[in-house]
Amino acid sequence: MTVIRPEATPRPTNDAVSYTLLAEDTATRARLGVLHTPHGDLPTPVFCPVGTQATVKALSPRDLREVGATMILANTYHLYLRPGAERIERLGGLHQFMGWDGPILTDSGGFQVFSLRDLRRVDDDGVTFRSHIDGSEHRFTPEKVAAIQEQLGSDIAMVLDECTVPDDYAYNVEALRRTHLWAARSLEAHRRRDQALFGIVQGGVFADLRAESARTLTALGFPGYAIGGLSVGESKEEMHAMLDVVVPLLPRDRPRYLMGVGSPEDLVEGVARGVDIFDCVLPTRLARNGALLTRDGRLNIRNAVYAEDRQPIEDGCACSTCQTFTRAYLRHLFVAKEMLGLHLGTVHNVHFMLTLMNDIRQAIKEGRYPTFREAFHQRYRVADAKARERNRQAWRRSAG
Amino acid sequence: MTVIRPEATPRPTNDAVSYTLLAEDTATRARLGVLHTPHGDLPTPVFCPVGTQATVKALSPRDLREVGATMILANTYHLYLRPGAERIERLGGLHQFMGWDGPILTDSGGFQVFSLRDLRRVDDDGVTFRSHIDGSEHRFTPEKVAAIQEQLGSDIAMVLDECTVPDDYAYNVEALRRTHLWAARSLEAHRRRDQALFGIVQGGVFADLRAESARTLTALGFPGYAIGGLSVGESKEEMHAMLDVVVPLLPRDRPRYLMGVGSPEDLVEGVARGVDIFDCVLPTRLARNGALLTRDGRLNIRNAVYAEDRQPIEDGCACSTCQTFTRAYLRHLFVAKEMLGLHLGTVHNVHFMLTLMNDIRQAIKEGRYPTFREAFHQRYRVADAKARERNRQAWRRSAG
Repeated sequence: MTVIRPEATPRPTNDAVSYTLLAEDTATRARLGVLHTPHGDLPTPVFCPVGTQATVKALSPRDLREVGATMILANTYHLYLRPGAERIERLGGLHQFMGWDGPILTDSGGFQVFSLRDLRRVDDDGVTFRSHIDGSEHRFTPEKVAAIQEQLGSDIAMVLDECTVPDDYAYNVEALRRTHLWAARSLEAHRRRDQALFGIVQGGVFADLRAESARTLTALGFPGYAIGGLSVGESKEEMHAMLDVVVPLLPRDRPRYLMGVGSPEDLVEGVARGVDIFDCVLPTRLARNGALLTRDGRLNIRNAVYAEDRQPIEDGCACSTCQTFTRAYLRHLFVAKEMLGLHLGTVHNVHFMLTLMNDIRQAIKEGRYPTFREAFHQRYRVADAKARERNRQAWRRSAG
Repeated sequence: MTVIRPEATPRPTNDAVSYTLLAEDTATRARLGVLHTPHGDLPTPVFCPVGTQATVKALSPRDLREVGATMILANTYHLYLRPGAERIERLGGLHQFMGWDGPILTDSGGFQVFSLRDLRRVDDDGVTFRSHIDGSEHRFTPEKVAAIQEQLGSDIAMVLDECTVPDDYAYNVEALRRTHLWAARSLEAHRRRDQALFGIVQGGVFADLRAESARTLTALGFPGYAIGGLSVGESKEEMHAMLDVVVPLLPRDRPRYLMGVGSPEDLVEGVARGVDIFDCVLPTRLARNGALLTRDGRLNIRNAVYAEDRQPIEDGCACSTCQTFTRAYLRHLFVAKEMLGLHLGTVHNVHFMLTLMNDIRQAIKEGRYPTFREAFHQRYRVADAKARERNRQAWRRSAG
């Protein structure tokens, strides 16, 4: 059952980015909406492919449009170091630099900097760190990170936050104090009128801290709210519990963004808990590892069983890879370490995620999200714990 | 001055591949023609991008069509080892396997096998070698190589030949004896009616051996003739001298293919000496090294001078890379080691070569090839001897 209320939240005219709520599922918190940005409107819930270094790995902007991408994410930490935010500004901003005229979301760099465990020092004013590229020393403050993202010119920028290990209460209390301090300073520092700055709810796996964070940030008043520090090692149950605490405390007329999430099953569950925006390197990274997504689960294309398989990756898939190439050819490309395999696999995986989001939106619209969700889980075999752990490890090792 | 003779060589009906001569330049040996193949007709002179492992590195079949490719080359040695010629046959042949419905030319594997200096033994019956992938032992005979290419199903197959060091006379005499013996056996063994088998003229840098080879092969009677063993370390002058000896001895109504050549200046000079078909890894390999081709010569996109250069690689270039991206963005992709850079650079370089061939054909057609040739050399700065030597070394190290 869905309640349609197109008139519920008229588009605010004073914000660069705003949200129109179109429909809400009555059995879950799933909701359908439109996100208005300086580079166009897009339907939500939305999944953003990740273009860490101003390119979604192995895809051109044209490829992105063809697989149905509407908004992409780029990483502030990486672009600040290389080629440099001032350089991108001089070259006309990130959209022009990378040839993508759709909306772009940039993160704050906090996640990357706090992942550099041995290379950073934090204090109340900011965080000092060493570049993973050349070891040079740099400092991020809330003001600096806001200014960098203004130079990049993304549609949605994020406040600097402190990313923690999720299960250390004392550390999370201390980090949250700084995160809230920084959120207020970020809001104060942000100037660009054609860019929205979102706040980030933190608090580890602790319901009281998450609730405090949601209330504090809502009181500050952001045009959108991110939920950070999840999918970083805690269990799926813990992640879901935190969403169930946070989302009801966030304003209904603002978009909600679950950072760095996630797998197909995470998207289905995140939507059920009221999330509007997701981003994750998962589909692109899995593709480069030869793990291709289907409605039944992951398929490892290197497997010898596909050596003479004339089927597409997934029967009925409309992506250009499945329309043109067999599993046998894709397996050959991966075994022979040919770049085209990485490209074709990425096209398929990103198309898979965006088609899933499309189906999710359709199900909400038609008032059948609970049955869609159940049917998805019935069929989709999630990667086993070992595979997920391997992925998490790789995730942590990577700066992206 | 051009003599047009559309009636000169009517298309033979009994051969899988035939050649129609359309026009000849009177001041040089440049000629314009049409190559008829089971997968379509194409204008000559033609340059074939190289798809060693059943993929032109970093390009999809659609990309190839968009940059103007008509015929591509695939390597028998590589495909025989992986994924295997029988496997490709079971999967419907090379065209279907790789999703390329245009003409395909396969080499004989001779060049690769004879490049494996420490891993092969030759005798009059054939050559035994070890795989560069797993060290396993294999044997190529003229009959085996013909059969492999019939399994692959290319439009044009090549006879097995013995590739030599170009300046050892005694070795070339001995190798040429075997090459001619093998050419006759290949012709005898070849069965497939929808595939043409071309002979290969060898003889190092020795005019007498080259002439003997051209006469011997012509007497055997092939539907097309390749010139092998050039651009393998000899000087440009030696290569040109050998073409001047060989081409006039080849039948005017058959296509001539200069194997593994070459650079833009080599194409211009090869055409002037009567060559119809070229293939080379140069544009794709250079692109992956960040060396991008322009009418003025090579441009090293990693150079710091391009860091904020908002121009395309080449002003006026119609390729999708130049239509969309700046040198500054391409430099960033190469410096950041992003795959998209390799793709975009390859699109440009292959488009450059194919556009050059298009311009060459237009110049022949309009009877102004000598002035075109002169203008090209006036403007195009060839890579210096050191750069050429580095490229040759890389070439020799590579099995591709």
